[in-house]
Amino acid sequence: MASIFSKIVAGEIPSYKIAETENCLAFLDVFPLQEGHTLVIPKKEVNYLFDLPEELYAELMSFSKEVSKAVKKAMPCERIGVAVIGLEVPHAHVHLIPITQMDDMNFANPKLKIEANRMEQIASAIRSEL
Amino acid sequence: MASIFSKIVAGEIPSYKIAETENCLAFLDVFPLQEGHTLVIPKKEVNYLFDLPEELYAELMSFSKEVSKAVKKAMPCERIGVAVIGLEVPHAHVHLIPITQMDDMNFANPKLKIEANRMEQIASAIRSEL
Repeated sequence: MASIFSKIVAGEIPSYKIAETENCLAFLDVFPLQEGHTLVIPKKEVNYLFDLPEELYAELMSFSKEVSKAVKKAMPCERIGVAVIGLEVPHAHVHLIPITQMDDMNFANPKLKIEANRMEQIASAIRSEL
Repeated sequence: MASIFSKIVAGEIPSYKIAETENCLAFLDVFPLQEGHTLVIPKKEVNYLFDLPEELYAELMSFSKEVSKAVKKAMPCERIGVAVIGLEVPHAHVHLIPITQMDDMNFANPKLKIEANRMEQIASAIRSEL
């Protein structure tokens, strides 16, 4: 069965898209720890980050760096934290999280509930920095 | 002032070394969340991961992937989680953490106290998988 992220790639599920390349996609996490919390994925459905072919892995990390710069410019924060856990959705994804303190990227914290129009504003602000 | 990681690179502070390349170094985190918790750093002291020059960033991520495969083989776990936070030591570092559940890489958890001889055993087990 296609992962929820593959459905986003296919356009079957809507997303707050940030950017894409031929092989990668960035969009806002709808269960964010912070405003601007972004996911970067390979379009190809591979469960485990380190099982990605070397070239695609390199592209994903390079694209994550590019996206992180735009997120940092658009959102008030000290820096962009990175996390790859991947036990919940079996499709490799890099979390890019605007942080100012350690606890800002604690996945045990409750996720924010952000209204759709605010999510669109955030996505638009990040896109404008790309 | 040189970061604690630069002192490790210079050999002024001992470490449980896992592997190194010309530009990168991997060693066990002495404040680990799990056994086998490894740090991968650029030898050059750059505070923020995404400020690394493109080539060095790519090398760091590629080296992290290689090291993660050895950590996964050596330690009982589901996969290797990745985190870059970097608010505590101003020298970019990638955490590679053997995880089986989400909470295994919760940085709010107390750090493990592992005896020196066990740390050496772990480092040796990981090195033997490289």
